[in-house]
Amino acid sequence: MKNLLGCNQLNKENLIELLDLAEKVKRNPEQYKNALSDKIIAVMFFEPSTRTRMSFESAILRLGARMIVTENGKTNSSSTKGESLEDTVRVINGYADALIMRHSLDDSAEIAQSVATIPVINGGSGKKEHPTQALLDIFTIKEKRGKIDGLKLCILGDLVYGRTTHSLLQLVSLYDNVEVYGLSKKALELPQKYIDMLSERGVKYNKCNSFDEVPKDIDVLYHTRIQKERFEEDLGNEEFVINKKVLNQFSENTIVMHPLPRLDEISTDIDDDERAMYFKQAHNGVPIRMAVLLKIFGRD
Amino acid sequence: MKNLLGCNQLNKENLIELLDLAEKVKRNPEQYKNALSDKIIAVMFFEPSTRTRMSFESAILRLGARMIVTENGKTNSSSTKGESLEDTVRVINGYADALIMRHSLDDSAEIAQSVATIPVINGGSGKKEHPTQALLDIFTIKEKRGKIDGLKLCILGDLVYGRTTHSLLQLVSLYDNVEVYGLSKKALELPQKYIDMLSERGVKYNKCNSFDEVPKDIDVLYHTRIQKERFEEDLGNEEFVINKKVLNQFSENTIVMHPLPRLDEISTDIDDDERAMYFKQAHNGVPIRMAVLLKIFGRD
Amino acid sequence: MKNLLGCNQLNKENLIELLDLAEKVKRNPEQYKNALSDKIIAVMFFEPSTRTRMSFESAILRLGARMIVTENGKTNSSSTKGESLEDTVRVINGYADALIMRHSLDDSAEIAQSVATIPVINGGSGKKEHPTQALLDIFTIKEKRGKIDGLKLCILGDLVYGRTTHSLLQLVSLYDNVEVYGLSKKALELPQKYIDMLSERGVKYNKCNSFDEVPKDIDVLYHTRIQKERFEEDLGNEEFVINKKVLNQFSENTIVMHPLPRLDEISTDIDDDERAMYFKQAHNGVPIRMAVLLKIFGRD
Repeated sequence: MKNLLGCNQLNKENLIELLDLAEKVKRNPEQYKNALSDKIIAVMFFEPSTRTRMSFESAILRLGARMIVTENGKTNSSSTKGESLEDTVRVINGYADALIMRHSLDDSAEIAQSVATIPVINGGSGKKEHPTQALLDIFTIKEKRGKIDGLKLCILGDLVYGRTTHSLLQLVSLYDNVEVYGLSKKALELPQKYIDMLSERGVKYNKCNSFDEVPKDIDVLYHTRIQKERFEEDLGNEEFVINKKVLNQFSENTIVMHPLPRLDEISTDIDDDERAMYFKQAHNGVPIRMAVLLKIFGRD
Repeated sequence: MKNLLGCNQLNKENLIELLDLAEKVKRNPEQYKNALSDKIIAVMFFEPSTRTRMSFESAILRLGARMIVTENGKTNSSSTKGESLEDTVRVINGYADALIMRHSLDDSAEIAQSVATIPVINGGSGKKEHPTQALLDIFTIKEKRGKIDGLKLCILGDLVYGRTTHSLLQLVSLYDNVEVYGLSKKALELPQKYIDMLSERGVKYNKCNSFDEVPKDIDVLYHTRIQKERFEEDLGNEEFVINKKVLNQFSENTIVMHPLPRLDEISTDIDDDERAMYFKQAHNGVPIRMAVLLKIFGRD
Repeated sequence: MKNLLGCNQLNKENLIELLDLAEKVKRNPEQYKNALSDKIIAVMFFEPSTRTRMSFESAILRLGARMIVTENGKTNSSSTKGESLEDTVRVINGYADALIMRHSLDDSAEIAQSVATIPVINGGSGKKEHPTQALLDIFTIKEKRGKIDGLKLCILGDLVYGRTTHSLLQLVSLYDNVEVYGLSKKALELPQKYIDMLSERGVKYNKCNSFDEVPKDIDVLYHTRIQKERFEEDLGNEEFVINKKVLNQFSENTIVMHPLPRLDEISTDIDDDERAMYFKQAHNGVPIRMAVLLKIFGRD
């Protein structure tokens, strides 16, 4: 694994390897504290981020590496002077040993990789991919459930532009006997191409119209924020809010996940419920990103 | 001391401990250069800052710790997507060993502490508290004067919104025989609740109308900037400017302090006067913040 | 060399020393990896930058030093509250062992140096100076050509506001038998004061009106971007674009340089031509900036 551009480059074998490594890292972080002490990593974010950037940075430091950071490339970098992404990457390529990038272009990771000689890690590309998010999501599910085979997953919220759900679907569909349910506003239903992808891989997709149509023993309710910044029209608020009353309709083993930030789609009244996994999920960003960095540099 | 949210949590005993530690750190910084080498500290600033952020960062590095930084959380973080401060803090909580935060909400430090399991250090909360500023202020006074008991302090400028003076008053009023004088525009006088707080602690507050009413042997003239960004109406410029002529009315032991940035309230013609302490005061931000970090982690 | 404010402070002797040191650093970076491990360096950028800031940061880390960074001082620092540059520098002076600064004021480096007791390195001052850019430019020319004496250099693009060309002219004119050619729009011709400076140093300046007037065996075509952000009127696009057809009119030893970012003045169709040196040139920013830091601290 030289780069991590998208989930589509992962097969079941290297996915399992990554998850196992992340588990090892999480159990014993001390063991890796000097693993990348000879590396300088460029962190370039052209879109706002708290979680992804800061957990990557935490991962970098926990591996003993150092970093050069652009927090807001949109206003603080040469892109304000009209520089192409290709040129920016070609330059950074000479300053660091790897590049972690978030950019609004859907193909930004591929563009970066096409001109870079150093490894490129996608920290979120437009509305297309966010592979380390999908990795930490599946890591969290596996940690809680022990395995992915036989998973029953319900995705909610913005199924059109939610790159995190798209990436997650690619990963879970590598496993056996997975079932996926979708619950969203009409305007935000899962695009056909993802339904087709699931179908090709033998995963049944069940479109639901209410919480009642979601099986009570569902393993995961994975909610997402309506990304208002990506829509021109106002889609209004989320219809399918998970609150205490809703959650109590489901099994005691059902976990609630969310890539965060959340708005109102998950009520704060379940924050202390043991089934609310979204903060632990976010924290898993550190070991999974440490694992990705170790793999990229062949130091696992 | 698990957190540092405000000056109200300090009593005379732990204040003295902190000041003594800062003095030790300043005298012998080398001794502490690896004191926090196992720590990662999150520095999140949601309002502009030069002094507080960069001196905290310098303190972090001088203790051997590492950091993950958000320079401009207002535009570069998930708060732009509508995330609550509570959620942001809960997430960062999993990435670092302590959180230093500046935020425009008056209760931001308390909010952060209420959801964090890691220590929270207030780097400035709205117009309410800025405890490390007050600490470096009192450290500077003590360094120059030898003690705080018997201090005669005059506060000037914006006494309504100046969180630094409010915090400083809380600290000096812990000592004996302190007298405070206030000199400001009518619209910027010290609010009654602070006068009451001083009174309860046996400190007399003397409202002045001109420099002539300030004792000539005053120990400290502590000026502050009119924070135009916090007012809707235009309050005009400072009436009570400290310049060479004004300063020369006072004792040769009178020192001039300012939390900076200054505008015109202190004339640059006194910058080279030995009594002008504002830059040395700013530099004291490093040892005092090193001391706070050492205390928070119990490494003093 | 206590500071690096501008190219005018360099004479041939210390320039050669710097270039030789950069060459040594580039050949053997490992040797310097702990050279500045006791130093904290403040990096303050008040104007956007990718290359200069990130290559300085990479240089800092490669020397084992640590840094405190302001990525966007214009919006994220106390200058938003009206603080003077002098005051900001006086404060930072107490937090770090050196200051690297970019600022929109032409005299910002001199202003900073006038109040600082720590070394100041100019990372770009208004439209006046950008000495480390000129250093990496001349380093790149020397690396490719072996020497500077006898150089035939053509500068293109924005010769009015292009601080990189102005700085470069100062350096190359220290050598013998240098000839300079200029090719630009009428409105962007080299100001008379630079022509006079060259003339005083015995360098002939040849104003050209087309590529045909530039000698075919020119050593360097040094193009620059029209800095639209510095003009009120619209000057239109570059007339003298270097593309494959143009480049093939020149010698196989002619190299193409550019300080980047480029817009359309160099066509991407020559990016893979061996004579296109602009990305290697940018990468040379790391060893040259390492050399500058080593010199400043007397650790060469």
